[in-house]
Amino acid sequence: MKPISIGLLGLGTVGSGVIKIIENHQDKLIHQVGCPIVVKKVLVKELGKARAVSIDPAILTTNVEEVINNPEIDVIIEVMGGVEQTKEHLLQAIRNKKHIVTANKDLMAVYGGELLTAASDNGCDVFYEASVAGGIPIIRSLVDGLSSDRIKKLMGIVNGTTNYILTKMTEEGLAYEDVLKEAQELGYAEANPASDVEGLDAARKMVILATLGFSMKVDLADVKTTGITMVNEEDLHYAKQLGYTMKLLGIAHRDGDDKVEVSVQPTLLPKAHPLASVSNEYNAVYVYGEAVGETMFYGPGAGSLPTATSIVSDLVAVVKNMRLGINGSYAVAPQHEKNLKDPEEIYSKYFLRIHAKDEVGVFSEITSVFTQYGVSFEKILQLPVKEKGLAEIVVVTHKASLKNYEEILMQLRDLNAIKEIKSSYRVEGSANA
Amino acid sequence: MKPISIGLLGLGTVGSGVIKIIENHQDKLIHQVGCPIVVKKVLVKELGKARAVSIDPAILTTNVEEVINNPEIDVIIEVMGGVEQTKEHLLQAIRNKKHIVTANKDLMAVYGGELLTAASDNGCDVFYEASVAGGIPIIRSLVDGLSSDRIKKLMGIVNGTTNYILTKMTEEGLAYEDVLKEAQELGYAEANPASDVEGLDAARKMVILATLGFSMKVDLADVKTTGITMVNEEDLHYAKQLGYTMKLLGIAHRDGDDKVEVSVQPTLLPKAHPLASVSNEYNAVYVYGEAVGETMFYGPGAGSLPTATSIVSDLVAVVKNMRLGINGSYAVAPQHEKNLKDPEEIYSKYFLRIHAKDEVGVFSEITSVFTQYGVSFEKILQLPVKEKGLAEIVVVTHKASLKNYEEILMQLRDLNAIKEIKSSYRVEGSANA
Repeated sequence: MKPISIGLLGLGTVGSGVIKIIENHQDKLIHQVGCPIVVKKVLVKELGKARAVSIDPAILTTNVEEVINNPEIDVIIEVMGGVEQTKEHLLQAIRNKKHIVTANKDLMAVYGGELLTAASDNGCDVFYEASVAGGIPIIRSLVDGLSSDRIKKLMGIVNGTTNYILTKMTEEGLAYEDVLKEAQELGYAEANPASDVEGLDAARKMVILATLGFSMKVDLADVKTTGITMVNEEDLHYAKQLGYTMKLLGIAHRDGDDKVEVSVQPTLLPKAHPLASVSNEYNAVYVYGEAVGETMFYGPGAGSLPTATSIVSDLVAVVKNMRLGINGSYAVAPQHEKNLKDPEEIYSKYFLRIHAKDEVGVFSEITSVFTQYGVSFEKILQLPVKEKGLAEIVVVTHKASLKNYEEILMQLRDLNAIKEIKSSYRVEGSANA
Repeated sequence: MKPISIGLLGLGTVGSGVIKIIENHQDKLIHQVGCPIVVKKVLVKELGKARAVSIDPAILTTNVEEVINNPEIDVIIEVMGGVEQTKEHLLQAIRNKKHIVTANKDLMAVYGGELLTAASDNGCDVFYEASVAGGIPIIRSLVDGLSSDRIKKLMGIVNGTTNYILTKMTEEGLAYEDVLKEAQELGYAEANPASDVEGLDAARKMVILATLGFSMKVDLADVKTTGITMVNEEDLHYAKQLGYTMKLLGIAHRDGDDKVEVSVQPTLLPKAHPLASVSNEYNAVYVYGEAVGETMFYGPGAGSLPTATSIVSDLVAVVKNMRLGINGSYAVAPQHEKNLKDPEEIYSKYFLRIHAKDEVGVFSEITSVFTQYGVSFEKILQLPVKEKGLAEIVVVTHKASLKNYEEILMQLRDLNAIKEIKSSYRVEGSANA
């Protein structure tokens, strides 16, 4: 049987992992797809560099045209990263009737729609399982496994770096800066960690998940995003005391009326929530379906081999489709128009930590602001602070609309009795939606 | 577009759930598969009975032939249960070129191979996602998502009843009999709970998972099975003290040499293990792949709507295949001959609780038996028992072969110093394989 030829764009750790898996599992792959899989051309930045895998130098090239315009190549695996130029390369490859497997979340979050439409027009597949939660087959679970359900909520710990940092801060009581430094030394965080710690990486993944899960195009600009740079060890201490664990959580929620919100922010979860025990660099996606109820998918979010495994699984799916002549037929365009919730429709509990003057009547002054907006408290904690004359007040509210909550914060800031609003986090309530 | 016609065998809670989902999600289903889905005939035991769903009495029948031999029906959904006769019905339907979706684990564990072969010969699909862990898309994750990896270990909490009982026993310190009774009253356990509490139900699911995960036919008789009926609250107390949680765990493991063991037994897991926090009636399957590392799939194991969701997702897959004309082409026969480990090749840690005479030299007598087989201890706990002159000794061993461990137990039973071996459990060590 004629082999299937692959063109690989990029030969970093993930690209090397793909080559290793294709070589080591050739027998199993032949058993699954009925023909050998051969890597034909590999785009690299530099020809002479030492490699983690032994590879025939003749198949390396620094010219992308030799891959995307190569008539012998059936499938392009894109692991080079980048957005604008990479999109152009892949569109060109699609016009050349090549199928695409990509791990590029930045690309898929922004141009996923465009690429999928082009692919559909050209009878090509675009698979992107590895773009979200590297080793977890969440994309195909949403596409196939939960296809007959109506998904109400997707919550994801989809960034390993920040989950590692928050886990260490919680377990060892360390400060953010110290853990970040350690994570950088260990290679868990990049030298420039902004995209991770500011939540952008997680936001991109939530765009991909929400678009798919709700069958509605969501844009990156629609995701209200807050990172973990302002989280401090005191917050984590109080969270623990109140029975919560802090996670950088992506939340995508739709109501009965099909209005959607998507956000990423440090969030307190009750300890019994399935996501609360997802630690260190692990990722997990929690899916609440109307019929199925609670499910969760857990695994490594990154790493060369987990990511490469997802890529090769996608490759197997593409090759099976090729053998069956059905490429491009599984892509389903979003069913719903974009329909985002307004701030008065987004409901949540909140954790709020305040430094107030330790005087008679202060607490009642604070509570009266909440009462004005019909918001009551679930938990209250008041302690003296070292600084004389100040009280530390921690409250967890019952559900409030985002609009009301933001107005409450504004009013509190104006109160004479309040010295500082130290921190404020979203709290996810019970385990179900 | 011509509608797809369904024949439903069985109209209990799951069957009613299937009808509800097909009716409520008709728009979404049409969007996904491009044509309406219509329930044509439903096999019931009794025509006149009150139903949980409103259904045209004209489509009900008590004659199975009217469903499986009905030329208008494309897909049979089997939710009637039973093994021998049900198998014959489904084989007949397959000969009539009907595709099958089934939730029947008893059937698939015993006749899965026969049904899949017949289906493949007739160009039909047999899908069975709902047969293991009702609401969790684990079958398709193994078939597709992890297809390019080599799975080394599958561990499953795949029986909700026993997980509910063990959770309650652990959390509330109650005795097995009391919790079982409560579970029966609440409808979480059946009046005759034998198949659940003796581990048979879990063993069937492990047969299905192991066959698929290792691409090797495994039979029910190959699964060494122990239920939870002998677990007592004292064991759970000690387990907790030593940092473990007890689960009825299905374990399927293969070594580098492709030899396989499959078992079901009460097992102690370290609290940090992802499976340890799976509580109450929830199920989870932990998959360790050579490349991907640790992943876990969590969700409801039973329930009419979760199970019905899996069934309708399978139905969608079948209908997509029909539209593409590729039914039967995805079925892959097991790649490997059966190759089971011998007891000297099965390694594990063990928890052992002994009542021994409280005399000088007794402990050294006990340890010398272990030493003789080269087995050392990881943890030791010794306490006096109320009964005078006795000591309670709890040990957790380092890894030992099953053969050696069973010989140790035999020798210990013969020791004069030992009054009784109270209990013995497998212990799964670190989180990775």
